[in-house]
Amino acid sequence: MTRFVQSEMHPHRWGSPDAATVLPEAARGLIEMAFGIDERPATPADAPPASALAPELLDALRAVVGGEHVLVDDEVRRLRTRGKSTPDLLRARSGDLSDAPDAVCRPSTHEEVAAVLAIAVEHHLAVVPFGGGTSVTGGLVARREGYAGLVSLDLVRMKQLLAVDHVSMTATLEPGLRGPEAESLLAQEGLTLGHYPQSFEYATIGGFAATRSSGQSSAGYGRFDAMVVGLRVATPRGELVLGSSPANAAGPDLRQVLLGSEGAFGVITAVTVRVRPLPAEKVYEGWSWPSFEAGADAMRTLAQSQLLPTVLRLSDESETAINLAKPDEIGGEAAGGCMMITGYEGEPAANAAKRAAVTAVLEGLGGTCLGEAPGQAWAHGRFNAPYLRDSLLDVGVLVETMETATFWFNRDRLYTAVKTALETTLGEGTLVLCHISHVYETGCSLYFTVATKEAADPLPQWLAAKAAASDAMMAVGATITHHHAVGSDHRPWLTQEIGELGGSILRAVKADLDPTGILNPGVLIP
Amino acid sequence: MTRFVQSEMHPHRWGSPDAATVLPEAARGLIEMAFGIDERPATPADAPPASALAPELLDALRAVVGGEHVLVDDEVRRLRTRGKSTPDLLRARSGDLSDAPDAVCRPSTHEEVAAVLAIAVEHHLAVVPFGGGTSVTGGLVARREGYAGLVSLDLVRMKQLLAVDHVSMTATLEPGLRGPEAESLLAQEGLTLGHYPQSFEYATIGGFAATRSSGQSSAGYGRFDAMVVGLRVATPRGELVLGSSPANAAGPDLRQVLLGSEGAFGVITAVTVRVRPLPAEKVYEGWSWPSFEAGADAMRTLAQSQLLPTVLRLSDESETAINLAKPDEIGGEAAGGCMMITGYEGEPAANAAKRAAVTAVLEGLGGTCLGEAPGQAWAHGRFNAPYLRDSLLDVGVLVETMETATFWFNRDRLYTAVKTALETTLGEGTLVLCHISHVYETGCSLYFTVATKEAADPLPQWLAAKAAASDAMMAVGATITHHHAVGSDHRPWLTQEIGELGGSILRAVKADLDPTGILNPGVLIP
Repeated sequence: MTRFVQSEMHPHRWGSPDAATVLPEAARGLIEMAFGIDERPATPADAPPASALAPELLDALRAVVGGEHVLVDDEVRRLRTRGKSTPDLLRARSGDLSDAPDAVCRPSTHEEVAAVLAIAVEHHLAVVPFGGGTSVTGGLVARREGYAGLVSLDLVRMKQLLAVDHVSMTATLEPGLRGPEAESLLAQEGLTLGHYPQSFEYATIGGFAATRSSGQSSAGYGRFDAMVVGLRVATPRGELVLGSSPANAAGPDLRQVLLGSEGAFGVITAVTVRVRPLPAEKVYEGWSWPSFEAGADAMRTLAQSQLLPTVLRLSDESETAINLAKPDEIGGEAAGGCMMITGYEGEPAANAAKRAAVTAVLEGLGGTCLGEAPGQAWAHGRFNAPYLRDSLLDVGVLVETMETATFWFNRDRLYTAVKTALETTLGEGTLVLCHISHVYETGCSLYFTVATKEAADPLPQWLAAKAAASDAMMAVGATITHHHAVGSDHRPWLTQEIGELGGSILRAVKADLDPTGILNPGVLIP
Repeated sequence: MTRFVQSEMHPHRWGSPDAATVLPEAARGLIEMAFGIDERPATPADAPPASALAPELLDALRAVVGGEHVLVDDEVRRLRTRGKSTPDLLRARSGDLSDAPDAVCRPSTHEEVAAVLAIAVEHHLAVVPFGGGTSVTGGLVARREGYAGLVSLDLVRMKQLLAVDHVSMTATLEPGLRGPEAESLLAQEGLTLGHYPQSFEYATIGGFAATRSSGQSSAGYGRFDAMVVGLRVATPRGELVLGSSPANAAGPDLRQVLLGSEGAFGVITAVTVRVRPLPAEKVYEGWSWPSFEAGADAMRTLAQSQLLPTVLRLSDESETAINLAKPDEIGGEAAGGCMMITGYEGEPAANAAKRAAVTAVLEGLGGTCLGEAPGQAWAHGRFNAPYLRDSLLDVGVLVETMETATFWFNRDRLYTAVKTALETTLGEGTLVLCHISHVYETGCSLYFTVATKEAADPLPQWLAAKAAASDAMMAVGATITHHHAVGSDHRPWLTQEIGELGGSILRAVKADLDPTGILNPGVLIP
């Protein structure tokens, strides 16, 4: 959080250039041993293809949001090209900016968003809502064929804390607020949202809602979709205002239809969330487990006892070993096995009581407490991984992540299926790491990190591996994504997960709210 | 639970005739003082209007489910007429069985349900899914004009526990299982669902899901919609199987579209729910608060501290006084103020720890513990109120309940608005009682009981009051229903709650899944 920089991200790298990671010598040595060093500097392009938008359309947009907020210059359009999946980065690293928008339009209010959508409908412009630009599933790579142009609807000017209700403990936030900005505004009120995904420094409130994000403190604060009690959405058919009450029986919960709608049903212009008091204390510690299974069973026991810390995550043997190979980052006290991180955020007395209860359970199940050093190391580096990916791509190591979730009975089967699919497709020398970072009474997520030596053309290499892993998830009945959303990358698998008829429901809602199909075409809807 | 009787309910009374309440003399005296006794015995009809279903349609249905499971005799059709709202009872008490189905059809499998729907589509038959028959919002009063007939799709034969997963702690239940039947099957596995609405003895698993039910132990076990991890649904367009994982980001959560769909989108044929270990101990106790506001603030503090007992409910001053006037039922130790019930269900050690923590908070906020007697009295009578309503209707006292929910900041405003609307519409001598029985971090439910002297024609009398109260809920931005669903009674207000566009989404999903509109016509969809 301390490193937060307001800069915009380049299409071929994560985050602020100032915070980019130079590979430590020790790490470089390990990588050389594992994969060999194959310097592959990025060769990004300065300019995207020329904007194809007709001048009268630009004028119409300018009339709504003001001339200075309709931008067509190359640099701005370059910075709004795609998201941050490894395929997105690989394309941008090779100079491919073909998905750049024709214009970037920056409305400042719900009404301006609605007016921009009306223009887009009238002229059949494709509109890609843009928050933090952190999608890792092709959520910002809309189809442009058949449209008069493609506009990036940048929500960067919508950054207000609209309302705070200290009695109900809710806050209404505008969609363009990045994680640290939202937390900073709430902190002035003594409040926190408690939503810390790895993308926290850049991702936005609107994006969290549109993608059903889940943060690293989900054990304590819940998924983002569980925090939302109200939504305001601008659609081509008009306004939706949802959220009469915390929960109700007034038919289907339409909030849960707009959550996860990925900009394909409408543009979220305000999100009312449940908030909590700013924690007085944050304590993180490490635990060692003899095996991934033993650690996972312990997580299950905690979840099924309704005894969850705020943070609960567990690395498998491989991920633990890799982390231990970076002694500067992880503390280094542990030796082998599997590392678990537990975290407690709240009042000191409540933290102490919860920690004592959790400790008793974990010790009873065979865990070994490693103290706070590994926990602090994790907390210090919790948003760093995307930077490391860039550094590895620079030396010819392909790195990507993917995640899924299933019920507890199916955890090991899913783990083995995905790991095997990745190793088989990518071949010898491929490293597959895994952790569990979100647990429920009935199941958990699995988050995989894959590293392999880049082929001559790494894009088809990765797409084949991703397809194999996705097929494996479907084959064992798991979800295609626990918290990264569908985008365009997961779309081919969605019908397998929700069935033909589930896809039909999504198309019906899409046709109702966006009858001419201007919103994020090619994303989400099967 | 001890009283559970398998009998079917008559259209003009709640529950088993064997369990009907005879008004105790003390209560009769109180009622005489408050309203006067005006004996109005029910004059129910033996036979509904003749079945209008063509013989070839009956044959088609018989070919699917077997001859003995397509019933057209008067008695069976009489017992499937409407639900249990006071308007439903008033109509049946006066001999009006005009809403009786033309036939009762009892499929035993998902495939049979699907086949019945196919026949209904082919012949344009209206289909009303029937579980426990406990709807209090006109959910079983479908429109029949324009249809070849109206079939009650009785799920009474679908009562299996299909699967139990002790690792993931889930169970898959068929929709026709009544509350006690489901709990009994789960208890044999050492498990519980923990869902105890007032209708528990009769209502079914399918109905809980279709109406987003919430039980009296919702503070500990959650709402029914929060327990559901998977659904199988038969629709006119085919099968839906949802639930790849406890939670995910694979687009909108379609489970939350089918939950609360009230038989208008499809027939739920299996529900996979999160289950918990059968509690070793159940402890209930009473607390007294100087005011409704003080007690409600204490509930809010507990909810916002994530320190909830399993049961948490609070009666306002009027409801407390009425309960205290029945010393045989409530223990009688309290004197005035507002009665709160707290309950702990689980392992004794965990119960004791939670109870100690809750006790400390409640004492700190000014509550007075009354010991276990009031709690036991509440637990003993928790499913009785619907019987009492019948006894009161017998003596000319109109009784009905209604419920809503809002955020905490709005609680008192909602309370006053609804109470005033009811008192104003129904006039002097009307008694309005209220309790809070479901709490969230951000808000709570309000459940009202109204008693007034019956007018010569009580139906329009009540409908006017209901409309005024519903208008009041909308005027303050609350929900039209926290846990009773929309049915046909709340439908006129749904658009105010979810907006024109929200209604449009529901119509779009309806048109997609049930294009010819055979499912529960007139229910839910605005």
